[in-house]
Amino acid sequence: MSSSKLKLNRVAIVGGTHGSELTGAYLIKKFERSPSLVKRPTFEALTLFGNPRAFKAGTRYIERDLNRCFSLKDLNNPSLATYEDIRAKEICGVLGTKENSKVDFVIDLHSTTSNMGLTVILGEKEDPLILNLAAYLTSINPLVKFFRWSDTQDNSFLRSVCPRSIAIEVGAIPHGVLNPWYFEQTEKLIYTILDFLNSYNTRPLKPSCSTITIFEGIKLVDYPRHQNGELSAMIDPSLVSKDYQPLEPGASLFKTFEGRTITYKGTSTVYPAFIGEASYQEKGIAMCLTAKHEISLAVDY
Amino acid sequence: MSSSKLKLNRVAIVGGTHGSELTGAYLIKKFERSPSLVKRPTFEALTLFGNPRAFKAGTRYIERDLNRCFSLKDLNNPSLATYEDIRAKEICGVLGTKENSKVDFVIDLHSTTSNMGLTVILGEKEDPLILNLAAYLTSINPLVKFFRWSDTQDNSFLRSVCPRSIAIEVGAIPHGVLNPWYFEQTEKLIYTILDFLNSYNTRPLKPSCSTITIFEGIKLVDYPRHQNGELSAMIDPSLVSKDYQPLEPGASLFKTFEGRTITYKGTSTVYPAFIGEASYQEKGIAMCLTAKHEISLAVDY
Repeated sequence: MSSSKLKLNRVAIVGGTHGSELTGAYLIKKFERSPSLVKRPTFEALTLFGNPRAFKAGTRYIERDLNRCFSLKDLNNPSLATYEDIRAKEICGVLGTKENSKVDFVIDLHSTTSNMGLTVILGEKEDPLILNLAAYLTSINPLVKFFRWSDTQDNSFLRSVCPRSIAIEVGAIPHGVLNPWYFEQTEKLIYTILDFLNSYNTRPLKPSCSTITIFEGIKLVDYPRHQNGELSAMIDPSLVSKDYQPLEPGASLFKTFEGRTITYKGTSTVYPAFIGEASYQEKGIAMCLTAKHEISLAVDY
Repeated sequence: MSSSKLKLNRVAIVGGTHGSELTGAYLIKKFERSPSLVKRPTFEALTLFGNPRAFKAGTRYIERDLNRCFSLKDLNNPSLATYEDIRAKEICGVLGTKENSKVDFVIDLHSTTSNMGLTVILGEKEDPLILNLAAYLTSINPLVKFFRWSDTQDNSFLRSVCPRSIAIEVGAIPHGVLNPWYFEQTEKLIYTILDFLNSYNTRPLKPSCSTITIFEGIKLVDYPRHQNGELSAMIDPSLVSKDYQPLEPGASLFKTFEGRTITYKGTSTVYPAFIGEASYQEKGIAMCLTAKHEISLAVDY
């Protein structure tokens, strides 16, 4: 075991960060009723319900996206006083901040209207724990996908309160819908992750497979829009539900309402994710183009 | 031609009645840009955008479901002053009310998170025009489904402002998502309906097929819930996406979060629709059980 390996003492599982993503919300409620489900011998497991008011209202958020409220700049700005800004500060009271985390690992539960299956969004790039977790999950279920945003420096996601964190992003699930199949798949995935974290505390790290595939976000693409901000085109029918599939230069990207095709002008193959995600439309995102990386783990940490 | 046959002079197409149902919203915008698409020789075609503020906000409604604001009681109640109550009165200024309709036919465009395909929700039961329209659509596309709510007396739907009306309900589409495939299918369906209405104005009614199938809502079923109103069970995995499929007595209906199955206690086969529709959760509806009727049109109207 590497001497730098820090034991995980407190693991936090967060759901309902977005009130209309019901998989995580109802999983947290289940874990709150039966804490033994997430208990493991070597660490304390906390569960936290992110945005109870938005959940009650059946919406993603009340005033502002809670999962964009965790930059240090915003947390330290006393003039920000929306419900979500206040809730973010409350959550930091429990989990700490990225400067002074009170937990050793965070799992934040989300769902998406995009066809991303069981996706694990990875945090810090070079952390052997995270990479070995991905290898372990790959060995158990090769269908699990791994996604990484390109910039996670001082980001504003909830999970950024802890240097070691992941999000689980499951779909396609309409917001406001409780899909039993994905509920059960996500629950199983969480238990597998907790088992891995427990074994990390007790055994040397050893990759469970030699290569993992990570889709890394390289470019956000917005819809073509009219001057008033309304969409002037849809996702091209050929691209619907094709998350993580290769998109070649010249392939169809959008189709205007009048039937004209708009193609991908890039020069290399990319792998779109979050295709047509409902809640990203207001953020100016039609999809996230990713690069597919095969990462070798044939190293001894 | 029957002497009682009244010519259709004004046909209204309404979309965006729910702000997050983007198929209808963007179809109306397309028709507003190109009115010739919905123009037919024998009638005037109006287009109307139901709830522009909710569309802008990306939500179903701002304060109250606009598609429940059209009962005469509510329309005549000056103390109701939500955005949607006011908007309903504005819409009645254009379309009239159920007592004094200013249009001869209404098509209201909706989408659903349930797997209901292309569904046409029929209005008044015994109207030969409506039944022959269903027969015509069946002859063109046998996959189109016909649904009827059991009680349409003095109902509060937008389309109730006109005695002759239908809604188009398309899914599964997550709210907030613009699905290009369904956009094109819905557009095509609207043109087929307009063509039929135009031909109705010029030729005697003659059924295009001898039998139509109508699914008639007979019972609304809510989720099992905890005392605080939160769900205590999900749609059973075996029932997900099985809209319009037969549900036999004793079949699984719900599954609790702890894994217990709750079965259908009825004594006859039913055909659930709107299974797990996201926006019906707040209305206390997990699904609508329907009876399947085969209706013979081998009569000369």
